[in-house]
Amino acid sequence: MESHGMNRIPRFADYMHRGWIDPEGKPELLHKRGAVENYDGHMGIGILNAIFASDRAVELAKEHGIGCVSIKNTTHWMRGGTYAWRMAEKGFMGISWINTESCMPLWGSDEQSVGNNPFCIAVPRKDEPIVVDMAMSQYAYGKLGVYRLAGKSLPYPGGFDKEGNLTSDPGAIEESRRILPTGYWKGSGLALALDLAATLMANGKSGSDMDADGLGSCGGCSQIFIAYDPNMFGEQEEIMEKLDRRVTAARNAHPIDSARPVTCPGDQTRKRRAKSMKEGIHVDDGIWRQIIELASN
Amino acid sequence: MESHGMNRIPRFADYMHRGWIDPEGKPELLHKRGAVENYDGHMGIGILNAIFASDRAVELAKEHGIGCVSIKNTTHWMRGGTYAWRMAEKGFMGISWINTESCMPLWGSDEQSVGNNPFCIAVPRKDEPIVVDMAMSQYAYGKLGVYRLAGKSLPYPGGFDKEGNLTSDPGAIEESRRILPTGYWKGSGLALALDLAATLMANGKSGSDMDADGLGSCGGCSQIFIAYDPNMFGEQEEIMEKLDRRVTAARNAHPIDSARPVTCPGDQTRKRRAKSMKEGIHVDDGIWRQIIELASN
Repeated sequence: MESHGMNRIPRFADYMHRGWIDPEGKPELLHKRGAVENYDGHMGIGILNAIFASDRAVELAKEHGIGCVSIKNTTHWMRGGTYAWRMAEKGFMGISWINTESCMPLWGSDEQSVGNNPFCIAVPRKDEPIVVDMAMSQYAYGKLGVYRLAGKSLPYPGGFDKEGNLTSDPGAIEESRRILPTGYWKGSGLALALDLAATLMANGKSGSDMDADGLGSCGGCSQIFIAYDPNMFGEQEEIMEKLDRRVTAARNAHPIDSARPVTCPGDQTRKRRAKSMKEGIHVDDGIWRQIIELASN
Repeated sequence: MESHGMNRIPRFADYMHRGWIDPEGKPELLHKRGAVENYDGHMGIGILNAIFASDRAVELAKEHGIGCVSIKNTTHWMRGGTYAWRMAEKGFMGISWINTESCMPLWGSDEQSVGNNPFCIAVPRKDEPIVVDMAMSQYAYGKLGVYRLAGKSLPYPGGFDKEGNLTSDPGAIEESRRILPTGYWKGSGLALALDLAATLMANGKSGSDMDADGLGSCGGCSQIFIAYDPNMFGEQEEIMEKLDRRVTAARNAHPIDSARPVTCPGDQTRKRRAKSMKEGIHVDDGIWRQIIELASN
């Protein structure tokens, strides 16, 4: 089951009813200069706004080599990697990130004081792109719940318990809300920098402004989309061969366990997608009942 | 003592003697399109090439809102954060990264198979910029040596020992060379994506091509510099206030230890710099003797 698919529908509907998402909100061009465009998302549907913005970034890159779109006052884009991946499928390198409300303690703090601010890079290749979609927390809260329900410990520590001890017990972290930044101080610092960068580039709300407004998860956030034309400075064939050589070297790196070769970012998502295309989309029964109920209202 | 200052001089001299750095190498413009320029660094002095490239990115951003310079066949830029910081001191937001030779195992591998590929973001502010300078390994090898010589354990696990156990013993990691990516699989994936992105954007060597060539640390690497004009889409005063509000919220996040308030990325470097400006630069006696000897040859 996907963390950001069907099971987000009830919350999405709830946000619409609260007025935190405006289904009529459309991106409005506020400013344009050179290779950069700045939009107001008018609290529209996050997925549609982000698709629009990433497509615009690609158009700007066609013209200027690099293209950058910033959008403010938008809403949750669901699976973050989607948009960089979309740029890569159009043959462009894509970079994107977002600032969110505070959901993780900054390093040295015991209160939620920074977003998990996912950062995404997609590199186009002849066949499948390499796609990183990386939140700045070591684990998502959703993942903690999955481990807790399965009665399992996390494979590596994922936060602090209420007494301030680093722990692999998912329930103890859900209770303390002291989820661990990825790489300790590193993920904390990068999360703050990405928040500031998104705020500055979009002239939008920062994570702490969103905390003050309290419009739910990612309500009123800022998002950045950068596209880059990979075929400017060399023969496409030459560059794609170079990337293939690098990816092949990664896949051939000597594995710790010979039964588990090294994978590349994007492989797992691609595998899950192939499974869904074949078997259909798996939906939790409870979520499905909620969706049926929402549809009948 | 700084990890990338005076104590790198002997190695720098060694690389020149081996022909791995060409002191006469200068950046040559290969291609230009829109907001992007691509240079060949001709194996020149890494610091000078990177200063040149970051300054060009700022000039391009003045013209196009965003500016991007990629440089290939360059050499070690020493402290990575320097160049994004430099862009921020000129009033621009800066992003930069590099690909290096393999010095860290990819996640799932026990051999060095990816670079630690530092990624840097600097956000300009009215007074001091916020600067992230983040290598993709949890600790640098230099740091391991510092802890080992002091007879200390690392504060958090930094790698695997020869038996494959996660360990905080710096000597055991130096021996196995199995240094840990920051955030386990996350830093590994991001390191690979940054390598591919730098390779593609500069049409330069990837980390595995550098491994094959064997021209020392960062010999023949690719570097990316992106500058962004923060004053395009709003009043400078308004944007700077927003950033101040965010940074103040971070500094005021409830601390775990009331004697140790939350710090922001760049604070520590700034503190060390202020100390050096006051007390002079501390140099290791052994390194100083090597420098004297090099100077007299």
